[in-house]
Amino acid sequence: MSKIAVIGVGQTKFSRRPDASIKEIAFEAFKEAVDDAQISTGDIQASIICSATHYDKQRTPAGVIAEYLGLNPQPTFNVEAVCASSGVGLRIGWSFISSGLHDVVAVVGFQKMTELSSAEVQEVMGRSGDVMWESPFGTTMPGYFALYARAHMQKYGTKPEQLAKVAVKNRFYATKNPKAMFQKEITVEDVLKSRMIASPLRRYDCCSNSDGAACLILAREEFARKVTSNPVWVAGLGLASSPMTLTSRDTSLSSFNCSAEAANQAYKMAGVTASDIDLAEVHDCFTITEIINYEDLGFCERGKGGSFAEEGQTYLGGKIPVNIDGGLLAKGHPVGATGASQIRTLVKQLRGDAGETQVNDAKIGLAHNLGGIGMYCAVTILKV
Amino acid sequence: MSKIAVIGVGQTKFSRRPDASIKEIAFEAFKEAVDDAQISTGDIQASIICSATHYDKQRTPAGVIAEYLGLNPQPTFNVEAVCASSGVGLRIGWSFISSGLHDVVAVVGFQKMTELSSAEVQEVMGRSGDVMWESPFGTTMPGYFALYARAHMQKYGTKPEQLAKVAVKNRFYATKNPKAMFQKEITVEDVLKSRMIASPLRRYDCCSNSDGAACLILAREEFARKVTSNPVWVAGLGLASSPMTLTSRDTSLSSFNCSAEAANQAYKMAGVTASDIDLAEVHDCFTITEIINYEDLGFCERGKGGSFAEEGQTYLGGKIPVNIDGGLLAKGHPVGATGASQIRTLVKQLRGDAGETQVNDAKIGLAHNLGGIGMYCAVTILKV
Repeated sequence: MSKIAVIGVGQTKFSRRPDASIKEIAFEAFKEAVDDAQISTGDIQASIICSATHYDKQRTPAGVIAEYLGLNPQPTFNVEAVCASSGVGLRIGWSFISSGLHDVVAVVGFQKMTELSSAEVQEVMGRSGDVMWESPFGTTMPGYFALYARAHMQKYGTKPEQLAKVAVKNRFYATKNPKAMFQKEITVEDVLKSRMIASPLRRYDCCSNSDGAACLILAREEFARKVTSNPVWVAGLGLASSPMTLTSRDTSLSSFNCSAEAANQAYKMAGVTASDIDLAEVHDCFTITEIINYEDLGFCERGKGGSFAEEGQTYLGGKIPVNIDGGLLAKGHPVGATGASQIRTLVKQLRGDAGETQVNDAKIGLAHNLGGIGMYCAVTILKV
Repeated sequence: MSKIAVIGVGQTKFSRRPDASIKEIAFEAFKEAVDDAQISTGDIQASIICSATHYDKQRTPAGVIAEYLGLNPQPTFNVEAVCASSGVGLRIGWSFISSGLHDVVAVVGFQKMTELSSAEVQEVMGRSGDVMWESPFGTTMPGYFALYARAHMQKYGTKPEQLAKVAVKNRFYATKNPKAMFQKEITVEDVLKSRMIASPLRRYDCCSNSDGAACLILAREEFARKVTSNPVWVAGLGLASSPMTLTSRDTSLSSFNCSAEAANQAYKMAGVTASDIDLAEVHDCFTITEIINYEDLGFCERGKGGSFAEEGQTYLGGKIPVNIDGGLLAKGHPVGATGASQIRTLVKQLRGDAGETQVNDAKIGLAHNLGGIGMYCAVTILKV
């Protein structure tokens, strides 16, 4: 297979953006990525526009975005896997280059969630579950993940304090990331006192609706070497699915099967194991998700995710730094942008450009991007 | 590049399906394709689910569909380019195989449009135009294409009778296709007397909202040769875009630039020219679109599309048979399914399996799948 690099990354600050349309936030991220890659728009041979649907009025947003970014008449289209949309977009971009169709591809992830009220967002999100058997009965995202939290607690003795530690870590690192939504540290006590959302998940256990975009420029090796002296290579890709309806899943509800499957694919393709990973970005839509991810990705033993968090093993200097850009919980989670934002963080780390949060001698990074209620998972391994 | 075949095709009848959910219609097409390929579900390594959004309540339909089709834990996700969704899906499936990620991929296109009222469908479709500058002012699909019809008439003298001939041809061939929505012939007079929708487009100049699904099984050569003695090869692929806002386009509004661009790419990749094509499926969402497609694809000279239709050159036995399965106008246009349905028709023809409408000695077929108001175009060339 061809060697393919991420040669440019860009991201808006994740926040509320009543001032800007989807095409404007997409442009902000795109421009930063193009500048970062030191290429021009004319070098880009295809664009892949990634977002979840129903948060704004514009259907088929690739149409307005490709036009605004100056990317006509190149191929463009929309990819959707809810929260894993841009993780999937990266896989497609990689395939377009690897198959010989293109040399340089832009993957643009975006979401503008704040045009709707919080209640409307919850209704829309609920319809990422089965609309015949689940969402009509009032399922919401926090509700789905609360089931996993309860099950994990029951099976493994995971405690609310351990969940809280994840939120504390990610809020802490967000204060080091100027593009993160939340910029104030919190304590375990703050988490445990925060408003109950879906027991046992409290306010600080949940990520927030936000607006933002992130962009990746992918290129074939020959092109990459011409424009950059520090390419970051896509070494492993995994993509897997789980049943959408909860009753069709592993009924223990204490693991996301698609995460383990996608990770295995990516590890195999990259020729590495979990212990080779220098840092990871994982999908912490809720604190429980990050804890389960540790286990599904093989960073710790099954059932030990809670104590892994409690021991601080995922801080800088721990066994494996995780979400040291703030993660979804504190950086923000404009859903279509999240996968690309994870890759951006890894690329900066692997280039040695991460400033205060730099992981020493980082050579291999992993991004884990979960879709919806755990029915899609994209895992990407990057190497220098 | 690897040689990749379409080894299985399936399609529901296009019609109104109040009896079935999206997963059920997807299953009907999928089962037919799997049976046609003489493989089992377990052979399929990834699925690409293609549809336009907002016609039904289910968000991220790949979740429910992959589950219902028994395709977990394989990769799955949604691709959207409005009416060109499954044309784009085929490109992605091809890339997944060509890049070495997978050997066998299912592309499933579907749409269930009749859950909404006709007025609601028009509102949803209007939002496939720019929601800042166009749709709030009342643009609809017939309105957009009526502008093209008027411009073509003014520039080239194209007549309503010539448009009507396209509808007459496609309704005629639909009567030979048991999977087509409309099963009655019409006359030019019927078209010219039908209700005005958006001048100069009348009822019979417009395709109809419908429900349906179509599925393609793609496979790498080695696998294809094991399971079938009549593989149909993907020889050429083109994908291009045009600006979404009309004011940013070629202001003559008498051609879809993305069609010509995508066709050029596909011709080049397949090493053929327009005159080598034995039959074509083109995107006749409106009669005027088919006429402009003749010109954009190089089947006739620029400006001569009207007389090309009038002369019957696109009937069986004419210069190039076009839409002899009924096309969107008469077979139906459940938007996400259309691209895959076009490929199904070509595959049957190239296998020599098309019965009464068989094109003699058909060796090369072309599918042209236009998205939305002409901002995406996928062209695929198949060969035996």
